[in-house]
Amino acid sequence: MNLNEYITEKRNAVDAFFHSYFTVQRKPPVLQQAMLYSLFAGGKRIRPILALASYEACGGNPAEIVPYASTLELIHTYSLIHDDLPVMDNDDLRRGKPTSHKMFGEAIAILAGDALLTEAFSMLSDPSLSGNLKEANVLRAVREIALASGLNGMVAGQVQDILSENLEPDHETLEFIHRHKTAALIRASVMMGPILYGSGRDVLDALSGYGDNIGLAFQVIDDILDVDGNAEELGKPIGSDERAKKLTYPCLYGVEKSRGIAGELISSAVSSLSSFSSNADPLREIANYLLKRRS
Amino acid sequence: MNLNEYITEKRNAVDAFFHSYFTVQRKPPVLQQAMLYSLFAGGKRIRPILALASYEACGGNPAEIVPYASTLELIHTYSLIHDDLPVMDNDDLRRGKPTSHKMFGEAIAILAGDALLTEAFSMLSDPSLSGNLKEANVLRAVREIALASGLNGMVAGQVQDILSENLEPDHETLEFIHRHKTAALIRASVMMGPILYGSGRDVLDALSGYGDNIGLAFQVIDDILDVDGNAEELGKPIGSDERAKKLTYPCLYGVEKSRGIAGELISSAVSSLSSFSSNADPLREIANYLLKRRS
Repeated sequence: MNLNEYITEKRNAVDAFFHSYFTVQRKPPVLQQAMLYSLFAGGKRIRPILALASYEACGGNPAEIVPYASTLELIHTYSLIHDDLPVMDNDDLRRGKPTSHKMFGEAIAILAGDALLTEAFSMLSDPSLSGNLKEANVLRAVREIALASGLNGMVAGQVQDILSENLEPDHETLEFIHRHKTAALIRASVMMGPILYGSGRDVLDALSGYGDNIGLAFQVIDDILDVDGNAEELGKPIGSDERAKKLTYPCLYGVEKSRGIAGELISSAVSSLSSFSSNADPLREIANYLLKRRS
Repeated sequence: MNLNEYITEKRNAVDAFFHSYFTVQRKPPVLQQAMLYSLFAGGKRIRPILALASYEACGGNPAEIVPYASTLELIHTYSLIHDDLPVMDNDDLRRGKPTSHKMFGEAIAILAGDALLTEAFSMLSDPSLSGNLKEANVLRAVREIALASGLNGMVAGQVQDILSENLEPDHETLEFIHRHKTAALIRASVMMGPILYGSGRDVLDALSGYGDNIGLAFQVIDDILDVDGNAEELGKPIGSDERAKKLTYPCLYGVEKSRGIAGELISSAVSSLSSFSSNADPLREIANYLLKRRS
């Protein structure tokens, strides 16, 4: 398989769905404009692609769940808008473009984030998008995504991240932040496949292992790129974590050891898929791609 | 029936559910503390009570849906926390207590709001809370609540409210704001009853009419109380809408005519229930109570 083609095809499917979904101009126009500005600000659609690849690994046709997979991008985008706010990370640029609050002001940015999060659940529960999926499985997917995003997941990670700025690094806190702030939603993206397909316990467990490992690896690699990457490829300045006194893997272990940790996590992720057929090749290739990515 | 006893009993059921649900101390503690601070800051639980009374009007036992009804209070509470932020309405007090950002800082307040909204969907999809409800009906309730809360509902109303400050009042904009910012979630609260009960079209239509009318009436009465109420009963200063140059019914029509409009809306709401038995008496009484409320 050609991974680049696979990723491009899936990303185009997600983007085409968004274009078809957000055609109605709603009042007041600025709200949807702000939502779409961030949604189309260059995101790589990693989370939807993982959900699609995971559904395929279970034996499903990914085209059936494009709208559901796309909800993960709404939630990811909302989290970036709120993280970038002046009272959080205070970032003016994201992927080389002005952040939402720089474009629309803080009030609209907060509300655009709120609306993206809410729209994810509206989309997940939209009967016109569900095809032949079983309602019980859709409700399980709602649960998986909500758990990964809130008090037990992403928001808890962001709160801990804020509380930990300027603190001495320790492994337990660092792993808590990364597992909650980033890995939880990536793991939920992977779990969407078997949940919507109605897979059994063995498949759920294997993909849970895969999702946990690539989720943590994804953030470790992000940390490394912030030290060792290329500002132009990343669309943001290098060293922003250090300036913001963020806890990161390189600041605790150095770049080389962090690279080793990421490599081991990716190997474990791929091992979790040993019982899967070639249907899981996209997941295997994505794992290796995440390790080598430069942005 | 004794409405005060009814309201107290239902409010206690909702509060008891929250106490049992949020027993686990999660890390980092401040997030759940901030969520619970606002959740227990004196809310009247009107939205959950409407859902419970509406389920009863359809022939159901309200005790079966207390967790679902309670999710409406999570969403209402999140919206208050975000509305009160300095970049929105900049309110220091809510029901006589410091607002979330005054207690916890803006970053934690935004994140506590995010987590409350997310937790609503986690709770709605929690199989341990669903009793004998059908998953298809639960998914329909998720949809109703998400639609009422986001781009097509509450968030759109809040954005329009912000855009309309300092503008000349006009009826169309004012009604748009009130219908979206307040009435949409109140209507969704009422609709939760027939949706979870699996009621037919006639019942859904009748309760939709009831919900639309009390939803708008609720906000008109709020506007009147801001001009004509008692600061101590309300827990906030009188005249804050006028100082913030908010569009309100009294500023467009005066207090007396606004009271008349609210009265007509409440009459229409009660008329919508004409085909219901005495099971709908709580809904009838709540409508009249909303008209007479002083806080």
